[in-house]
Amino acid sequence: MVPHLTTALSGPLVLLEKRILQAMPDIEHWFRTQWQEVSAPFYASVDLRNAGFKLAPVDTNLFPGGFNNLNPEFISLAVQAAQVAVEKICPEARRLLLIPENHTRNTYYLRNVLELCNILKAAGMEVRVGSLSPEVTEITRLETHDGLPLILEPLVREKNRLKLNAVSFEGIDYAAFDSCAILLNNDLSGGIPDTLQGLEQYLIPPLHAGWATRRKSQHFSAYNTVVDRFSTLLDIDPWLLNPYFETASGIDFHARVGEDLLAEKVESILKKTQAKYDEYGITQQPFAIVKADAGTYGMGIMSVKSADEVRDLNRKARNKMSVIKEGMAVSEVIIQEGVYTFETINEAVAEPVVYMMDHFVIGGFYRVHTGRGIDENLNAPGMHFEPLAFEKPCTLPDCAGAPDAPPNRFYAYGVVARLALLAAGLELQENDPLNA
Amino acid sequence: MVPHLTTALSGPLVLLEKRILQAMPDIEHWFRTQWQEVSAPFYASVDLRNAGFKLAPVDTNLFPGGFNNLNPEFISLAVQAAQVAVEKICPEARRLLLIPENHTRNTYYLRNVLELCNILKAAGMEVRVGSLSPEVTEITRLETHDGLPLILEPLVREKNRLKLNAVSFEGIDYAAFDSCAILLNNDLSGGIPDTLQGLEQYLIPPLHAGWATRRKSQHFSAYNTVVDRFSTLLDIDPWLLNPYFETASGIDFHARVGEDLLAEKVESILKKTQAKYDEYGITQQPFAIVKADAGTYGMGIMSVKSADEVRDLNRKARNKMSVIKEGMAVSEVIIQEGVYTFETINEAVAEPVVYMMDHFVIGGFYRVHTGRGIDENLNAPGMHFEPLAFEKPCTLPDCAGAPDAPPNRFYAYGVVARLALLAAGLELQENDPLNA
Repeated sequence: MVPHLTTALSGPLVLLEKRILQAMPDIEHWFRTQWQEVSAPFYASVDLRNAGFKLAPVDTNLFPGGFNNLNPEFISLAVQAAQVAVEKICPEARRLLLIPENHTRNTYYLRNVLELCNILKAAGMEVRVGSLSPEVTEITRLETHDGLPLILEPLVREKNRLKLNAVSFEGIDYAAFDSCAILLNNDLSGGIPDTLQGLEQYLIPPLHAGWATRRKSQHFSAYNTVVDRFSTLLDIDPWLLNPYFETASGIDFHARVGEDLLAEKVESILKKTQAKYDEYGITQQPFAIVKADAGTYGMGIMSVKSADEVRDLNRKARNKMSVIKEGMAVSEVIIQEGVYTFETINEAVAEPVVYMMDHFVIGGFYRVHTGRGIDENLNAPGMHFEPLAFEKPCTLPDCAGAPDAPPNRFYAYGVVARLALLAAGLELQENDPLNA
Repeated sequence: MVPHLTTALSGPLVLLEKRILQAMPDIEHWFRTQWQEVSAPFYASVDLRNAGFKLAPVDTNLFPGGFNNLNPEFISLAVQAAQVAVEKICPEARRLLLIPENHTRNTYYLRNVLELCNILKAAGMEVRVGSLSPEVTEITRLETHDGLPLILEPLVREKNRLKLNAVSFEGIDYAAFDSCAILLNNDLSGGIPDTLQGLEQYLIPPLHAGWATRRKSQHFSAYNTVVDRFSTLLDIDPWLLNPYFETASGIDFHARVGEDLLAEKVESILKKTQAKYDEYGITQQPFAIVKADAGTYGMGIMSVKSADEVRDLNRKARNKMSVIKEGMAVSEVIIQEGVYTFETINEAVAEPVVYMMDHFVIGGFYRVHTGRGIDENLNAPGMHFEPLAFEKPCTLPDCAGAPDAPPNRFYAYGVVARLALLAAGLELQENDPLNA
């Protein structure tokens, strides 16, 4: 099942998809040369919005959850890509210590951790899961939503190494575990814990990829660079792939500091977007997304259609905007052009999420959302969505088919997701403390 | 559908499969370190024989046909592997000139060429097919067995480059084509044509991979080295993965020169094999395969159970043995321990063929042969076989399943095929004229 594009305004997008399809060998050649200069992150997922007239990334996650939502038929693509990634980073590695998020009660997230373990094991690694959670004081068996076991072990810091102790549990002997590399599936929203500071082991991704230091605006600034180059290659308007954004700092939602600045920026984004809508004959009303510049998890985020909306926030809205995951306060925000979601399945909004390992697209799924508007954020806290795995890989365009035939739409997703991936690579390179 | 292993003697193989499964992280780590030192061929296919008590490669093809026989569900694995291969060899390449075999009347082979083109195109290359055949004097549209078009163009040599001319054909304009790399799907059994000598373009695989210079005995000698290392790693008897072989040169089947030498070698192989059969309690009768040391295509090959059989060859058999593909005379032969095929589907013998690109296993199929003995050669000229694509990739063992459960048997195939691939890499390295 593939979502329908329910818009009369799909003209420019079909043009874009057509252009992408035609230029496919040039695009792949271009990516090859780009990856000679920029290292791909170990893994990433990219949230896309397909407005019919525009296809753009709205979020790039460097600690992707949701591997459990991918099509199991194509998990071998992930295995093969993981092998490439391991070979590049640490060919001598035998063992990998995986550090997940602390929310051990989310049994769907646990399923993601298990799937990631399975991929890495199939790629030939010995994998064990070590938890940062203060609740995990001894080896623990948790259960995923579908009843599969996941073993979590307490991390042990010995000088500059993180290890797992030897232990006997439920009749199985676990040897002491000292790995040459550590894979983080924890986005460090709460800051970098002491346990992870100054390790001599190889950390994947590096600490500066975490939300303790990462900023969305740095990512989208790198994305501007990438899209400008790519648009020149394809001779297209970069706006078709890129939402406008601005930043505002020194905001205090509680104390109502910075409201005017924020309103000004919203005004500016809406005006620029309206000009583009006019240019392309789009009759929808522009909207903007205001969100914390550091990682959210769908918290600290709002959708506005006029500058006034950020001026008259009630207490509840101000509270909602002022803190994000792990209780971090918000003072820097990013104001981004909203991109309509015009893909639907059975009248439910469907948002594609593309998964990558190293520089390979390994699959993806749709977040299918019933009872939610086309201009709202689909990744909000407590929000329920049904995952719908992509039924085909994103690497097999059908050049003889229509530009919007499913394999070609998947290919276009994969291209735009890789542009965001390239931006993430650039962003990590630019913000590497070793390069400072 | 997966073939049955119809033998009461599967004991040692289940042990072998069990050992392979247990040692999986060690095996993958070992392969990773091996590929740091040895370059993988661009592509290869390996014919395996599964005797229940033994699992071994009998032929390693560096110009694989049969891509059309792979499971279309997993062609994305081939695409991803091809991208890795292209990045390693020539990341700047945009175009690839594919040179196929000359037998343009084999419409199944044409389908293989088309599939290979599709994989390379999906990997982002511009691909055109240039023919060495003197019959292809102008651009020609051929048709595959299933009615798909394949365009062949005459090669044009300009100084040290092979190109295709600009041409208009059936309403389509083909630009002049000058590629930085040339992919050979032609095994050069008839010698290296002048057209291919001294080119400045990158030839993949290199000319010395062709049967004009390659020898099976060099391959199996490299395979000895590889299996010895691997068997030490797994602490197993290398014979379980490796058929004995010897060579004999100066043979002239027509003139009956060298018969005694050949008989002696056959005797020696059968004796050593019998000793192993005794050791493992195998009651079958040992047999040996005598074949041309240079590439065959199933010609110049015979199966014998006693030394006398090579002494009393009638005229017909001598004729059959004395020439191979392209009419080349046979004077060097390899005498190899025969490996029984105990895999059957509906009572038909089934021989697995594993396909690889770069160092990745991308799939495979069974040659399913009705009305043929378990000790005969399945790749004989004019022989008909039904391909049965592997239904799953070879990279997803089920460590919780039985050692001979299908995913685990596929994994074991992939491991043994990669041992042969590693041997091919070593062989190409050792026989590289640049290293001479």
